[in-house]
Amino acid sequence: MPATPTSAKYTLRIRPQATLGVDKATGRIIGVTDNASQSAAELVGSWTGAPVSETEIEQVSLQADQFLMPGLIDTHTHAPQFTFLGIGHDLPLMDWLNKYTFKHESEFKDTDKAREFYSQVIDRTVRNGVTFAAYYGTIHLEANKILAETIRTKGQRAYVGKVCMDANSPDYYSESTEDSIEVTEDFIKHVLGDQAEHRLYGLPIQSHLCENPSEIEFAKSCFPECRSYAGIYDAFDLFTSRTIMAHCVHMSDEELALMRSRGVGVSHCPNSNFTLSSGIADVRRFIKEGIPVGLGTDVSGGYTPSMLDAMRMAAAANRALTALKRDRGDKLEGRDAVPLEAAEAVFLATQGGARVMGMDDELGSLEPGKLFDALVVDLSTPLSPVPSIASTPAQFVFLADDRNVAQVYVNGKQIHSST
Amino acid sequence: MPATPTSAKYTLRIRPQATLGVDKATGRIIGVTDNASQSAAELVGSWTGAPVSETEIEQVSLQADQFLMPGLIDTHTHAPQFTFLGIGHDLPLMDWLNKYTFKHESEFKDTDKAREFYSQVIDRTVRNGVTFAAYYGTIHLEANKILAETIRTKGQRAYVGKVCMDANSPDYYSESTEDSIEVTEDFIKHVLGDQAEHRLYGLPIQSHLCENPSEIEFAKSCFPECRSYAGIYDAFDLFTSRTIMAHCVHMSDEELALMRSRGVGVSHCPNSNFTLSSGIADVRRFIKEGIPVGLGTDVSGGYTPSMLDAMRMAAAANRALTALKRDRGDKLEGRDAVPLEAAEAVFLATQGGARVMGMDDELGSLEPGKLFDALVVDLSTPLSPVPSIASTPAQFVFLADDRNVAQVYVNGKQIHSST
Repeated sequence: MPATPTSAKYTLRIRPQATLGVDKATGRIIGVTDNASQSAAELVGSWTGAPVSETEIEQVSLQADQFLMPGLIDTHTHAPQFTFLGIGHDLPLMDWLNKYTFKHESEFKDTDKAREFYSQVIDRTVRNGVTFAAYYGTIHLEANKILAETIRTKGQRAYVGKVCMDANSPDYYSESTEDSIEVTEDFIKHVLGDQAEHRLYGLPIQSHLCENPSEIEFAKSCFPECRSYAGIYDAFDLFTSRTIMAHCVHMSDEELALMRSRGVGVSHCPNSNFTLSSGIADVRRFIKEGIPVGLGTDVSGGYTPSMLDAMRMAAAANRALTALKRDRGDKLEGRDAVPLEAAEAVFLATQGGARVMGMDDELGSLEPGKLFDALVVDLSTPLSPVPSIASTPAQFVFLADDRNVAQVYVNGKQIHSST
Repeated sequence: MPATPTSAKYTLRIRPQATLGVDKATGRIIGVTDNASQSAAELVGSWTGAPVSETEIEQVSLQADQFLMPGLIDTHTHAPQFTFLGIGHDLPLMDWLNKYTFKHESEFKDTDKAREFYSQVIDRTVRNGVTFAAYYGTIHLEANKILAETIRTKGQRAYVGKVCMDANSPDYYSESTEDSIEVTEDFIKHVLGDQAEHRLYGLPIQSHLCENPSEIEFAKSCFPECRSYAGIYDAFDLFTSRTIMAHCVHMSDEELALMRSRGVGVSHCPNSNFTLSSGIADVRRFIKEGIPVGLGTDVSGGYTPSMLDAMRMAAAANRALTALKRDRGDKLEGRDAVPLEAAEAVFLATQGGARVMGMDDELGSLEPGKLFDALVVDLSTPLSPVPSIASTPAQFVFLADDRNVAQVYVNGKQIHSST
């Protein structure tokens, strides 16, 4: 395997001639060695401290234009919204919700539709190299079960959130608070099985925060007793170290301080923020404030499930903001003076995402002890959009697409191969 | 052919069951008829006013998920810069020019390199559906001849501009004014042949304008006698109705008025403007001011030769600007209050581009009398990024890529087929 990027603080480590070992039983990485002169069996022995024979080992060699990287982590997307991918974006957020989102999502009361459609959705995100995603489902218990089962069958790693909605949505797509609690507990029990008893609460929470000004005004008007939009979530104990808040485009310093103190993570969704005219979130501000931040595609507020697009759009958003700050005379110092680099975008899509998802000890980089969620990227597939071997992550980030995702592994197991 | 979008003012006309006829001898469209009940021979007879037999006609039928659209027009790109596609964009414009552009472009004094490389470049832009491009070459006479010949051989339509540069570039990539004039005249004679005598001057001109603040300051400092950056070009008679100015991010009202009065067109390059932190050009402002505007990929200031990306990035740029104007309290009225739609992006990439290139009477839409430069788009190719048949142009614009460009025609002749 010619290149194995791992990480340091918002940078990438590229390891040009590394050998990496995975324990198939646990799905964990047992060792990484650069320029190894030993045999595979000797290497495995040195990593595990116990002798092993060649016959116990399955060896895979990468080709010249291939490299291994951590799997991509989509911290915010809506599985049912793949039905209207790419349409309706000439509408502002609130109109778009009413005209498209609620209408299309309500159709998932049809379990046959859920079964057929979610199968296509997961195939598509896996093909795009997403090893771990925070999916929203719909309001429906059965459709959410089908989504979770589809993910389990196809081997992807995911959080699946039941949509809970008892106000400000159409009658045909709403539930009572009591129903919502009951159905949500049913859903958790179904997914977690025997483990559910001890874990009904304290699970990850995902929602949206400060996406656009009219949404912010509306949220505040519903809870005039709260100091801020972020304060509403906090008042209801929804701001925890396992909470993921999407967008966070328009945040006060006070709100950011509250997020930091509660350990809430941000899912930065630049495509959606552009597409729905929400504004430009300042991703470097989150990083500087010590707030966990990863990337989200936010399908179908964002028009594509491609995490490579999310990386590119994160760069575009940061660079537009840098230019605007410069043009209005802000003094740009340190990292603020430098455009978001491709390596940082990769970091956000891997380790950043792992931290937002509360699994940075387990995922996000190819280090011994972590779970092996990884991609084999091939830059020389037929009609590859990458014209030559990338000497830096930049050509991969800015030019590659799903054609370059040759293999996808989750928990040490191959779940997709393009050939 | 199920859908044949043609145009009205910045909108698209979609013709779901149209038949279109092309005269192979001239490459011109002879007629378009919706829901025709006649035979092909009868239709051709009705368009030309003369009887014709079925055997004289070659008929092509499109499949259910295919449609025909005008070819894409890239109004600003640099053919030699495909060598460093996607890299170096963490640098500001001036540093990027010195570290990458001048160094890589100077290598085109090697004609073998030019021959091999330009062949790949044109294959790639054609595969992306570009039927007409304004290419920059390099400073070198021979490499520019090779670029022009490659384009002619492959059947694409193009303007090829020799780079003329006698100041503020490195010694190894500069020329004297006298040499520049002589070589440029040689190049024009070579390309135009017998036609050159009458057309040595009055040809299209392409350059860059108001891309970023430090470039603007530098340009003004070189010509303190001129009132503005745009005024410099005008002072040297370079502002004509055949002039294409790329970027135009930071324009004064006075400069826009000057452009309008001279008939100068704008190549809006949103990807490049994002990528190099140049800022956000206000494309609706150009339209409102009556200035011709098309889209450019600006490879490799922009990281991709995809005109679909240019459309998407034009939408992103407009929408970010709309949000910023809203957030700072601007009163948004009429079109300014509405995000740039997919149909407008298609218009900019076709008719808008044709007008900027001075060929809107001949190109940009599928109307009788115009030259047949067109694409067959196929939304259902294997692994198509478009998940379902597009009921509007939005899914095509936001989701498609080169995999969906099934056939490319220039001047009535097929120059590419993906099968």
